[in-house]
Amino acid sequence: MKTGSPIYLDHAATSWPKPERVSQSMLEILNGPAANSGRGNYRMAMNAGRTILQTRTALAQLLQVENANDIVFTSNTTEALNLAIKGCLREGDHVVATMVEHNSVRRPLEYLKRTKGIQVDYIPVSAQGVLDMAELKERVTSQTRLVVCAHSSNLLGSILPVEEIGKIAHAAGALMLIDAAQTIGCYTVDVKQTGADMIAFPGHKSLLGPQGTGGLYIRPELELEPLLHGGTGSQSEAVEMPKVRPDQYEAGTLNTVGIAGLGAGIRTVMEYGIEKIYQHEWQLTQQLMQGLLEIKGLTCLGPELGMPRTGLVAFTLEGFDAAEVAFRLDRQYQISVRAGYHCTPLGHMSAGTTGRGAVRASVGYSTTVQEIEALITAMKQIAQ
Amino acid sequence: MKTGSPIYLDHAATSWPKPERVSQSMLEILNGPAANSGRGNYRMAMNAGRTILQTRTALAQLLQVENANDIVFTSNTTEALNLAIKGCLREGDHVVATMVEHNSVRRPLEYLKRTKGIQVDYIPVSAQGVLDMAELKERVTSQTRLVVCAHSSNLLGSILPVEEIGKIAHAAGALMLIDAAQTIGCYTVDVKQTGADMIAFPGHKSLLGPQGTGGLYIRPELELEPLLHGGTGSQSEAVEMPKVRPDQYEAGTLNTVGIAGLGAGIRTVMEYGIEKIYQHEWQLTQQLMQGLLEIKGLTCLGPELGMPRTGLVAFTLEGFDAAEVAFRLDRQYQISVRAGYHCTPLGHMSAGTTGRGAVRASVGYSTTVQEIEALITAMKQIAQ
Repeated sequence: MKTGSPIYLDHAATSWPKPERVSQSMLEILNGPAANSGRGNYRMAMNAGRTILQTRTALAQLLQVENANDIVFTSNTTEALNLAIKGCLREGDHVVATMVEHNSVRRPLEYLKRTKGIQVDYIPVSAQGVLDMAELKERVTSQTRLVVCAHSSNLLGSILPVEEIGKIAHAAGALMLIDAAQTIGCYTVDVKQTGADMIAFPGHKSLLGPQGTGGLYIRPELELEPLLHGGTGSQSEAVEMPKVRPDQYEAGTLNTVGIAGLGAGIRTVMEYGIEKIYQHEWQLTQQLMQGLLEIKGLTCLGPELGMPRTGLVAFTLEGFDAAEVAFRLDRQYQISVRAGYHCTPLGHMSAGTTGRGAVRASVGYSTTVQEIEALITAMKQIAQ
Repeated sequence: MKTGSPIYLDHAATSWPKPERVSQSMLEILNGPAANSGRGNYRMAMNAGRTILQTRTALAQLLQVENANDIVFTSNTTEALNLAIKGCLREGDHVVATMVEHNSVRRPLEYLKRTKGIQVDYIPVSAQGVLDMAELKERVTSQTRLVVCAHSSNLLGSILPVEEIGKIAHAAGALMLIDAAQTIGCYTVDVKQTGADMIAFPGHKSLLGPQGTGGLYIRPELELEPLLHGGTGSQSEAVEMPKVRPDQYEAGTLNTVGIAGLGAGIRTVMEYGIEKIYQHEWQLTQQLMQGLLEIKGLTCLGPELGMPRTGLVAFTLEGFDAAEVAFRLDRQYQISVRAGYHCTPLGHMSAGTTGRGAVRASVGYSTTVQEIEALITAMKQIAQ
């Protein structure tokens, strides 16, 4: 599938190409005898239910969650984060977040500031992507209801110490929510290790599933106000959402076809192994940085060479507009990268790129050394 | 695809099988060069954007909407109804709904009763599915903010006079929201004709798209509070959702693959023609009712023979549990129908089937006369 294809380096937005078994699984459930899960007890409806359960179980295994029903499906990370944030915060609550949060965290928080008078502290992050832990410790108090943190910055690529942050949150009696948009599938995200109360994640990035999938892990004892109220196929006579997981948080018809594809994506990731994927992607980012840093006027954002980072490198080139660089990479070199603001204005403030944006190249498990070489060569030509 | 397949008569839950071009369109976008719409200006991202625009445009044509951006994508009807209802109602508002609303309308309303003190009147519907218009006229006053109405009852199959109801709503200064879950794709749902302010609809029922798709039409001047706050790829530096459609209501990554499939489904529907589909389905329901009514102790719910109805017939059989009937149809006859409460407890109150539930058979554009005959024969044998 890759021969003759463009060089795709925007895996942080969505992975591509998907493994072939992803589309196979989707076709099987779309064209095979499968109907609407939980909406009937006939076999076709149960086939749909079984597929959804398989993917839920695979996710539980990946996240080290004991009961798969503590993982609920959403249509993307944004929905998962909205469910988590709006579901747990009440009038006047205090929240601690970081400066590298994506708009999918920041905008729900700002909305609740406006409508429910919550208070939010955004903890500074250095240009290298390092969180100011002293400041965090100071800001998390017994008044804090929620600490929310990107596991890895989608602009800087740095990995945040969510385990340590979670301990600080829990010591203060606060909840810990991890936004695993940039880590699930390419870096260990593990409920046991992190002790997180909630983990929001996408299905279509490093888990290699199709767009339209994502989910939220919710600790068993934690009860959220559902984001969606509606039919569940269970306890239909009740006016309230049934207090049964996953139904309580999954009103309406699920994306059965997408969830089938996600299951196949997760199986691929688990066969490869997360550690191997991380190492592969890290090697590629190091190769890329080494090549790019030879270019005069080019600055790579985030962690320095040799430091841990997820599979993305954002950079600026003096005298060049980010959008122009991306445009030329696309048109002249068939290389797909993303340019612009990456939905994280405070992240750009941390990086010192406010008003300028950045070019971001991001790799996946299938990205090759040759593709990185092609990008380096192209950038050298553009910079001349 | 149908040879040797079970006889599928649960189209009101989800249509099956989907036209072959639906999976073809999905595969093309999944495996072809297409990335994340609106998250980059490179060609692969624009390919995804183009696909989404095509489906949005097809929907606009179907719904007679001038500007396709007034239609926003959701993951199902439930999300569309949650966006519509929670997005327009404020503290203390008055709402008029009907007794045949699905839980996807009733549960959001009951939630807002509890949290925002809204007041709701559910207008009675007769066992034949006829809404008490006199009562409706009385309840809709200048205090009413929203009138919400199922276009067709998912239990009774009756078609509600949404055009007339909309006029009453507008005369009182209220908004009109139509739940088109059971009509879009098999009965005319038209913004121009109905004058509705909002229309919520599924992609995976009579529009023949995959699960995980749906949408909401929102009248141009009407501004809702978004249900999801998050990244839009546009105006990333703003803390608020951009007031640009469709971005304002579409935070997060869309289900590009599903939306591609939905586009193919809509094209199939438009080629067949809505009126032809309605007539085909109506003929089949009449055939089914005629056959079923010969069975002693069997009662069909909703409109009488010869009256308009959408493609579903719910029924009870004296001395038989609905679930048992559905189970036997599935196991002994390979016929898939749904039994139970159909997510509409007040609908069952209208039908007089509270505590008993009902068996529901529902047809699609591809259902055949032979399949209906098979169900009638099976029911005659079961009843003996």
